[in-house]
Amino acid sequence: MKRLGILLSGRGSNFEAIADNVAAGKINAEIAVVISNRPEARGLELARARGLNAVCIPSKGMEREAYDRLVVAELKKHQVDLVCLAGFMRLLSAYFVREFPLRILNIHPALLPSFPGLDAQHQALEHGVKITGCTVHFVDENLDSGPIIVQAAVPVLDDDTVETLSARILKEEHRIYTEAINIVLSGNFRIEGRRVLLTKP
Amino acid sequence: MKRLGILLSGRGSNFEAIADNVAAGKINAEIAVVISNRPEARGLELARARGLNAVCIPSKGMEREAYDRLVVAELKKHQVDLVCLAGFMRLLSAYFVREFPLRILNIHPALLPSFPGLDAQHQALEHGVKITGCTVHFVDENLDSGPIIVQAAVPVLDDDTVETLSARILKEEHRIYTEAINIVLSGNFRIEGRRVLLTKP
Repeated sequence: MKRLGILLSGRGSNFEAIADNVAAGKINAEIAVVISNRPEARGLELARARGLNAVCIPSKGMEREAYDRLVVAELKKHQVDLVCLAGFMRLLSAYFVREFPLRILNIHPALLPSFPGLDAQHQALEHGVKITGCTVHFVDENLDSGPIIVQAAVPVLDDDTVETLSARILKEEHRIYTEAINIVLSGNFRIEGRRVLLTKP
Repeated sequence: MKRLGILLSGRGSNFEAIADNVAAGKINAEIAVVISNRPEARGLELARARGLNAVCIPSKGMEREAYDRLVVAELKKHQVDLVCLAGFMRLLSAYFVREFPLRILNIHPALLPSFPGLDAQHQALEHGVKITGCTVHFVDENLDSGPIIVQAAVPVLDDDTVETLSARILKEEHRIYTEAINIVLSGNFRIEGRRVLLTKP
């Protein structure tokens, strides 16, 4: 059984979707540990309520790599195979990325490379796009920039607010994060340049 | 009857789709003139074969605004209401844009703001996106940057080449360009910031 490590900073809605799909047998893995950099993250509570290992490693005031060494140690202690960022509001250091090569995923609420960074849904509305979406990608040291595993398109409606648009995207996030985790855990992919291509099982 | 002016530099596949839809009554307008900046553009031949006014105004060696003054004069001579760029490989001057405020459309083979500029399909493949598409937008003085009227999403497949992906996108281009022309000709829209919002007829 493969072991997932989840990193979050807040509510962790994608963590909950992953946990639901693990429980439903739709992801062939178990959640080994949930780590938050913020003590008040609601995701920690939710993890504990599910009987999962939930650990807070506060990041406040720490340098990036010093912090990442603590997180990597915790992930290794729990023998994590795949790290899933679920609203983890920090860039990872080169050290962290090297420790889990092609084993760290992130989800972003836009069709990258459009609208990287914070408030992607707000950015999309302001730009006036008619289609946005979400992206699961491998994590490298840069912001929202690693090779893309799965994307989903979502329409922007004329009467959308950030809230209604975010809710519509979130549904797709929950679906494609599970899809991407299964692709990566299966090992049935190869990378050519920036392209993630599926291979036969 | 509203009057369209088409600008092209090459084959003008989007011009043909527009002409077909005009002929089929799916666009409530007529094509007043087709203008190419290149004498050898196949779109000119195709326009003549359809019995349309087809004019070559060679751009070679001309300064941008001096050239645009010739084109604007030709468009005005034909009393054009709406200018449609269909593979017209030149940036328009501020002068041109001012002469046709919110009356110039362009189509781009990507989901802007991703992959502006040349070879958008190649850019999309190289970047490894799983979803790309096309965009019809109002033209301003900058490259592929005006307010967006319609977009369509298109999947990128693992075995896609630039050719297969371009063909898949082109089908959607033909569909949404007509849709966008009808929206603009109807006048049933308003612009808020960068957003193009439909209004009731």
